[in-house]
Amino acid sequence: MKTSLHQRRRKLVAILSDEKIDGLLTTSPANWYYLTGFTGESGALIVSRKGTTFITDGRFMVQGRDEMSGVRILQQKGSLFGSVGQFLKDSKLRRVGFAPSQITVGQLQSLRKATGASVHWVATDGKVETLRMRKDAAELAQMRQAAILAGEVVQSAIGLLKPGIREFEVGAEIEYQMRKRGASGPAFETIVAFGERAALPHARPTAKRLRKNELVVLDLGAILGHYCSDITRTVYVGRAPKRVRIWYQAVLEAQGAAIAAASSGAACSDVDGAARQVLARYCLDGLFVHSTGHGLGIEVHEDPRVARGQKKLLEPGNVITIEPGVYSAGIGGIRIEDDVAIHADRTEVLTRAPRDLIEL
Amino acid sequence: MKTSLHQRRRKLVAILSDEKIDGLLTTSPANWYYLTGFTGESGALIVSRKGTTFITDGRFMVQGRDEMSGVRILQQKGSLFGSVGQFLKDSKLRRVGFAPSQITVGQLQSLRKATGASVHWVATDGKVETLRMRKDAAELAQMRQAAILAGEVVQSAIGLLKPGIREFEVGAEIEYQMRKRGASGPAFETIVAFGERAALPHARPTAKRLRKNELVVLDLGAILGHYCSDITRTVYVGRAPKRVRIWYQAVLEAQGAAIAAASSGAACSDVDGAARQVLARYCLDGLFVHSTGHGLGIEVHEDPRVARGQKKLLEPGNVITIEPGVYSAGIGGIRIEDDVAIHADRTEVLTRAPRDLIEL
Repeated sequence: MKTSLHQRRRKLVAILSDEKIDGLLTTSPANWYYLTGFTGESGALIVSRKGTTFITDGRFMVQGRDEMSGVRILQQKGSLFGSVGQFLKDSKLRRVGFAPSQITVGQLQSLRKATGASVHWVATDGKVETLRMRKDAAELAQMRQAAILAGEVVQSAIGLLKPGIREFEVGAEIEYQMRKRGASGPAFETIVAFGERAALPHARPTAKRLRKNELVVLDLGAILGHYCSDITRTVYVGRAPKRVRIWYQAVLEAQGAAIAAASSGAACSDVDGAARQVLARYCLDGLFVHSTGHGLGIEVHEDPRVARGQKKLLEPGNVITIEPGVYSAGIGGIRIEDDVAIHADRTEVLTRAPRDLIEL
Repeated sequence: MKTSLHQRRRKLVAILSDEKIDGLLTTSPANWYYLTGFTGESGALIVSRKGTTFITDGRFMVQGRDEMSGVRILQQKGSLFGSVGQFLKDSKLRRVGFAPSQITVGQLQSLRKATGASVHWVATDGKVETLRMRKDAAELAQMRQAAILAGEVVQSAIGLLKPGIREFEVGAEIEYQMRKRGASGPAFETIVAFGERAALPHARPTAKRLRKNELVVLDLGAILGHYCSDITRTVYVGRAPKRVRIWYQAVLEAQGAAIAAASSGAACSDVDGAARQVLARYCLDGLFVHSTGHGLGIEVHEDPRVARGQKKLLEPGNVITIEPGVYSAGIGGIRIEDDVAIHADRTEVLTRAPRDLIEL
């Protein structure tokens, strides 16, 4: 069932009310989109019992009116945070929540200066983000499309991998293919890493040319209908030496174990642990230098985090990546990543591209 | 003359020392690149008399060692800001600067918790950004290349504007052309707006098809060698009606007046005012809903801001955009934007594409 934007805001107000918070200020564009449908980049949203207000500058007034309904839109006078403070003071909201992970020290200073003692500022992280973790049916449908698109694009990119091609040529083609299929753009900077550069988990495409007998890591995601996908495939150009085969097998098994562990009610740390245990059996856990995955949705990195120490239990509607990898300065890197949705009774892999080692 | 990264850090330390600050913490990737050459996305840089230290997580250790020299690289233990705090405590730096516009309330909380009373936190915005405003010869050479590339791409995109084409097809082609010419990617989300959508200064490309007798706004920028460009051209598909011609002429004159006013020693507010005065003569100043321009460099929005009330005087080495525009919900929008570099004795327009009204 599709949750209406109005229902989302009502739910948020109910949660705030439970914590005796009169209104919530959010400066996160992803939260704005989730709560109101607005897709602009500048402003501040205040949600309260008394209604929803968006304050922005002249560039976004027309767009705001086009995209939002049931939201009062005000144009800032002078600085944004001065205007927000003035609005809050006038609206007589007493206890106003803000996200300490998103509001800068300077912004809070401006807000406090404008409201004086009339507003009590309550630090409260993740109020909207917690709602966003549980995707509804319409969101899941959109994410399925974004994931399928990413799978198609990664497969088309693998088709380009001939010795001599440059990393950035593959990168350009990947993003072109995404947009041709309707994506509004990449969900993050596309990673195309050949040979030793594959040892950098976050390598940006360079002018490096592909040679025979190199590993290639392709990590890409598309934004389609405002929702993100994220997929990684690793291929070997040539006949893979034994060590690469064994390492690939280890990562593939680690990923499979983590996907199997990712079910409703499982702790995120246990999903991460499942991948780590497999790699430890191969004595490769020391080369797994990041966490197993992250939530995915309107943003490419959302809650929940699938990492060590994350006690949070997976719930139906969560969408996460599962992406173990191993990296070695000598050999390069191997990472396999898919997106999965958690349902009450099953786990659905959203991305659809073969996972077996491809040797070109 | 090219300033070495080491010289940049030494200059920063001298400025800090003048203000009795022992070390500066910066979390801005653009500042990292400017001071150290590091291009990764996660970590914290501390510059002090005692040396430069970068603290990051496992994903960026190899890349950090590859890209930086003369910088100590430490891997965080647990949270980043906990590790930074611990490092500062151990290093006995007493007065540490941070940017209140970049550090969140939550980050400062973590830092304070880790350092206790051993560090006195000094709020100081723009220390590195002030250095970055004055581009050296090597930076200007790079920015010239980025600007020329943007001009070539906007002209090739204008060649695609045939009735029936969709906004996102033009957007995809623009970014593909950038990368083919060596750009690492767009400097911001490319704007392609047809007809009434051109009234949104920040329109994202949609599936809308181009029709005869519509305005088209193309606003794009490329990152080349880590430096940004930014250009806007507006064209009319068909024979422009009289009102469009007059408005275009007004914007073109406003842009010319602002470029003429942009010289070393001029106040940014006066450059903005020069554009506004021309539009006022046409009674169009009410439709100019944003500021005249912004600094450009490693980031697409830098200091100085070319806007009302900005008293800052332009200096040799500054690179700014000049981009007046008029927007009306009925007719669409017209914006013309170029990048200019301020020299002691002249102003150099970096972008090179014809500015006269093009009717297709």
